[in-house]
Amino acid sequence: MAHTNAKKIYDLVGAEALLTEAEDLRRYLTGFSSSFGYVLSDKDGSVFYTDPRYLEAAEKELKGSEISVEKYTSNFNDLLTKYKQIAIPVDRTLYSDYKKLQDSGLEIIDSSSAFIRAMSVKEDYEIESIKKACQIADKAFLKLLSQIKEGMTENDVAALLEFLMRDGGASGTSFDTIVCFGESSSVPHHDTGMRKLKFGDIILIDFGCKYNGYCSDCTRTFLFGDDGKKGEFKSSYLKVLEAHMLVKEQLKAGMGGAEIDAIARNCLKNYGLDKLFTHSLGHGIGLNIHEFPRISPKSEDIIVDGMVFSDEPGVYLSGEYGIRIEDTVMLEKGKAVSLTDTDKKLIIL
Amino acid sequence: MAHTNAKKIYDLVGAEALLTEAEDLRRYLTGFSSSFGYVLSDKDGSVFYTDPRYLEAAEKELKGSEISVEKYTSNFNDLLTKYKQIAIPVDRTLYSDYKKLQDSGLEIIDSSSAFIRAMSVKEDYEIESIKKACQIADKAFLKLLSQIKEGMTENDVAALLEFLMRDGGASGTSFDTIVCFGESSSVPHHDTGMRKLKFGDIILIDFGCKYNGYCSDCTRTFLFGDDGKKGEFKSSYLKVLEAHMLVKEQLKAGMGGAEIDAIARNCLKNYGLDKLFTHSLGHGIGLNIHEFPRISPKSEDIIVDGMVFSDEPGVYLSGEYGIRIEDTVMLEKGKAVSLTDTDKKLIIL
Repeated sequence: MAHTNAKKIYDLVGAEALLTEAEDLRRYLTGFSSSFGYVLSDKDGSVFYTDPRYLEAAEKELKGSEISVEKYTSNFNDLLTKYKQIAIPVDRTLYSDYKKLQDSGLEIIDSSSAFIRAMSVKEDYEIESIKKACQIADKAFLKLLSQIKEGMTENDVAALLEFLMRDGGASGTSFDTIVCFGESSSVPHHDTGMRKLKFGDIILIDFGCKYNGYCSDCTRTFLFGDDGKKGEFKSSYLKVLEAHMLVKEQLKAGMGGAEIDAIARNCLKNYGLDKLFTHSLGHGIGLNIHEFPRISPKSEDIIVDGMVFSDEPGVYLSGEYGIRIEDTVMLEKGKAVSLTDTDKKLIIL
Repeated sequence: MAHTNAKKIYDLVGAEALLTEAEDLRRYLTGFSSSFGYVLSDKDGSVFYTDPRYLEAAEKELKGSEISVEKYTSNFNDLLTKYKQIAIPVDRTLYSDYKKLQDSGLEIIDSSSAFIRAMSVKEDYEIESIKKACQIADKAFLKLLSQIKEGMTENDVAALLEFLMRDGGASGTSFDTIVCFGESSSVPHHDTGMRKLKFGDIILIDFGCKYNGYCSDCTRTFLFGDDGKKGEFKSSYLKVLEAHMLVKEQLKAGMGGAEIDAIARNCLKNYGLDKLFTHSLGHGIGLNIHEFPRISPKSEDIIVDGMVFSDEPGVYLSGEYGIRIEDTVMLEKGKAVSLTDTDKKLIIL
């Protein structure tokens, strides 16, 4: 039976009725994966309306749960006329859908913050899924290391790593795997391509997989042999690693996102490298690869137990090299625990 | 250099300025893949505003094109104050973004139909990318057939097929690969799982990959050995195949989506199978796996040369079996041409 969160969100919002369409939020409410549907909740319970493609599977999976399943029909909007107010996630609602509800005279309440709040603090079943995704990704990465050979393209390495994650039980990737060789590593979101691996190259791999809908996220930077010319890279690597580890040591429950980001940024500043750290330190991870909390210079999000997010400082010197060291981290008993956890000492293959 | 469509869309819309955020539309305008950015077009040209993660790569890829690249900053909205009207894809715009533009006094024009119209008719460079994606998927499927073994899970088969597509040059999948064994095939969007393959099982695989951002889409249904109990399945298979082929024979430029859908639906009706055909016949394919034209019972979309869409009749008998036979098809010189094209005669492994 799927894990459901319909009543939890209904109670948090406190509106007469809730209507939810956005795919990830719908998945959070129902525990069921689908590309089309609406969840309608009121005091009497929740109904998942979907189309024939999903009806049989949804009925099976939601049997005995708090959510019943019905076929979506074109007169769906008539169902809403019995309410005076309806809560929708306004930031996630298309203008056209918003306008339809507004035109039919319903008072519109915003359910966004309830979703953000509930989804950012993970329940045990969610933590278990994220842990499993992280373990699958870790194992796949270790297997990959022994299979990387000169002449492979970035695309070959990405394909192999994705296979190893699927083969380990993942249902897919959290995002398109990023593999950069050499100076391409200086582009934080480089398009994995056909460049071939040669001796001495830097390799940067940013990868994640999904288990039970939940994501992992991890980045490792390493060397394919030592050509003796990577002195500056090696020195910067140690500083990025120091920033990464310092975050885990110093972060505590109750800190704000900006405060945590500053741990890494100040550490790199001491080495004059903060100008090369061109992105945020981290982001929440769950059903989505980017969600709350934000760990960035301007974030006011407060970190509490059960939150899962990335710790990913990086340094990018255009046309030369890039370094990013990232783990998926959770806050447990007020302290950081790594969920991805392969060795972060500089690997030289 | 990336293929761009900024001026084409600007001219089609005819508004003072165009603002585009939606990821797929932004990709269509710039030819560049990114998870954040805005394209702003006016009579003087187009600018792609993005964040530091993408700046270096975007500048490189768009050098010499009609689109210049600038860093997105927090005072971005001030840039819009010089206009009186702005066109946005209203159906694809979040309510919160719409409201910001409206509140700043801009007249809002809808650019959606220009995008839909332009993107549904593919240019040569787009057709080439889709063809390549289809060829990679076809080759991967043929390789897969020789590697399917008793005891493999649905997930194993999906992992292997996805690897073969990546290994063949795809940048990723068009959607999560669907692999169903046995009676699971009766669920059109079954979640690929851990069920193990055994002699006599039906195998249904719905799969696609991306090349240069463009998708392929294909489904094959076949048998893992013949246990002598699949008489009804085999008989229905021939009827679904007849419906599939009849669509390709009879569809012509100028027909409407509903008229094309009816070719397959009427064919299945003659056999009393139309009630088991629980979804639309097809959908447009491009940068998105589902786009225009719609090939469904209510679609008024008119089919013209250069459109690419799926032909995918199916028959699903709950708890017993499912059959779907799907090719990616393009309209060329008024007639259908298959872009995915592996054999559709019933395979018995």
